[in-house]
Amino acid sequence: MAAFAAVEWVGDEHGCLRLLDQTLLPGEVRTIDCTTVDTVFEAIRSLRVRGAPAIGVAAAYGVIVGCQSKVNSPRAEFDAHFNSVVDHLATSRPTAVNLFWALDRMRRVHQGLYDVWSSAQVLPRLLAEAQAIEAEDRAMCTAMAQHGAPLLAECTGVLTHCNTGGLATAGDGTALAVIIEAARRNPQLKVYADETRPLLQGARLTAWELMQRQIDVTLICDSMAAWVMKHQRVQAVIVGADRIAANGDAANKIGTYGLSVLARAHRIPFYVVAPSSTFDLTLSSGDSIPIEERAAAEITHGLGRQTAPTDCPVFNPAFDVAPAENITALVTERGVIRPVNSETVRTALS
Amino acid sequence: MAAFAAVEWVGDEHGCLRLLDQTLLPGEVRTIDCTTVDTVFEAIRSLRVRGAPAIGVAAAYGVIVGCQSKVNSPRAEFDAHFNSVVDHLATSRPTAVNLFWALDRMRRVHQGLYDVWSSAQVLPRLLAEAQAIEAEDRAMCTAMAQHGAPLLAECTGVLTHCNTGGLATAGDGTALAVIIEAARRNPQLKVYADETRPLLQGARLTAWELMQRQIDVTLICDSMAAWVMKHQRVQAVIVGADRIAANGDAANKIGTYGLSVLARAHRIPFYVVAPSSTFDLTLSSGDSIPIEERAAAEITHGLGRQTAPTDCPVFNPAFDVAPAENITALVTERGVIRPVNSETVRTALS
Repeated sequence: MAAFAAVEWVGDEHGCLRLLDQTLLPGEVRTIDCTTVDTVFEAIRSLRVRGAPAIGVAAAYGVIVGCQSKVNSPRAEFDAHFNSVVDHLATSRPTAVNLFWALDRMRRVHQGLYDVWSSAQVLPRLLAEAQAIEAEDRAMCTAMAQHGAPLLAECTGVLTHCNTGGLATAGDGTALAVIIEAARRNPQLKVYADETRPLLQGARLTAWELMQRQIDVTLICDSMAAWVMKHQRVQAVIVGADRIAANGDAANKIGTYGLSVLARAHRIPFYVVAPSSTFDLTLSSGDSIPIEERAAAEITHGLGRQTAPTDCPVFNPAFDVAPAENITALVTERGVIRPVNSETVRTALS
Repeated sequence: MAAFAAVEWVGDEHGCLRLLDQTLLPGEVRTIDCTTVDTVFEAIRSLRVRGAPAIGVAAAYGVIVGCQSKVNSPRAEFDAHFNSVVDHLATSRPTAVNLFWALDRMRRVHQGLYDVWSSAQVLPRLLAEAQAIEAEDRAMCTAMAQHGAPLLAECTGVLTHCNTGGLATAGDGTALAVIIEAARRNPQLKVYADETRPLLQGARLTAWELMQRQIDVTLICDSMAAWVMKHQRVQAVIVGADRIAANGDAANKIGTYGLSVLARAHRIPFYVVAPSSTFDLTLSSGDSIPIEERAAAEITHGLGRQTAPTDCPVFNPAFDVAPAENITALVTERGVIRPVNSETVRTALS
């Protein structure tokens, strides 16, 4: 059980949404009790809650928070208000697929409740759906952890990149959930966390999560990963993914590609952990995955002060792609895909 | 010609030492005119001047600055003062080999001047020696640049790490001098500079130097280097070295080892540029080179604010070692060593 929850519903349908304010981590651990839809909206927009699954769960609960004031209103008025709340929340992070998906589920439940139901009766049904979304995400994390942990059974050390843990999901995460389960089975396991420039999710979030769980974590700069491998401090690298192509090529936080090459050169297994919803079978390979380039300021001013010359040209790809041939196994909630190629991916997802 | 000088003597033997205050870069370009030995001492200790060759030159000039007040004193009094100045400067950076070496040269010149010379006559001789040290360093940089530039003749892009330029030497540097000469020959050359965590010498210093020289530089995070190689944005990697073993293994800023593995995996040549004084033939291989581990705060608080949890365990090696088999060629002031092995190194240095 985590020592914290990124997203939590408190009480019954008249309760509230409690979020851990991730913008304050690791300096301060503060939760926000959201009792209005505007608070939820602002928390999503300002990255107080982040990670695709966690955003989806927060938005679903945000619908309840937004509709509580109309619980005694006539049903037609409630319905109109419901729609405006959902539409509003959908604009909080325009590109977050899990956000739209979670809000669509809420919409479908609402549509299924005919006007014979009173507004007061609708609210618990909506809460039940939001709780189902959370429970499903949690179950998916658990399944990935159970499938993945045996892969780390022989390791004394493991390296991870970025943040893929309980701060990004309702459960224990994807790659980090596997690490957490492996550390539960082997408390001696040492975890090396890349700080993950430019936005330092590894330093700010992963190191914090693992310390909260009393797991033995060591923070390194991204440039130290190769030296850690060379000195056999780790026997596996395990990361998450943002999008996986039909052939198993996996897009993930910038730095992942380099780690996959280094792992291969050091004959260290390289594992990618992601729910099956991460696969996009319309893309035959990773070459078709668009790579977002982000603002120069993330590199030149990303840490509270200017660390590069004014107007210095910058290349800042947010993601890169680990090719399938560098990936020892893919772990999903359905099981382990190994070896990784178009056939094994198709079979596993069918 | 550089648009700046890290170390510069202004005027005759009654002049002063002008240092570029590197602690203020890239935000502010300010020079300090040192007219007392204490100012020189503080500048070296506080890293206002850094880079082994630049420190050596600054210390040599610091001796002149420190002795100016005794130019009309009896020779015995001058001599005693000279010794105290040299002894004092030697404690400014206890591990800087170039510092001791430069001060020893000043001491030998002083010892060679018998007491028939007046104090006023000694000072110009000391200044001439300091200027010789500077000129020799400058000539060494020029020679490395001339030997190395042809290696980059076919490149449209080149990647470098840390700072090895005019800020670290009296001339244009080591690896960066090669890049500067190559860019003079081919102004289209694109230079990718790793920011070089934890201390960001690439972002703060290399990017600044290259922009001062109107050379096309692009700053990246260290974790992006592999992706830059994969996309054929660079056709060579070129770095400096702190110490090179008899077999050609080269210790350099942390991250260098990983770059050497990545370059090899992408079939990109990997060059190391350093004066022959960098070789330590008493070490048969890089395994014997001690790797300094530095303070955790460089990673957790290195950028002006806390970016990792309080008391987070950290692994912070300052250097790593690129093995000779990953090094395509070594460039010294004497020429190019290629292939790199114990025999070619011994022959080149004999």
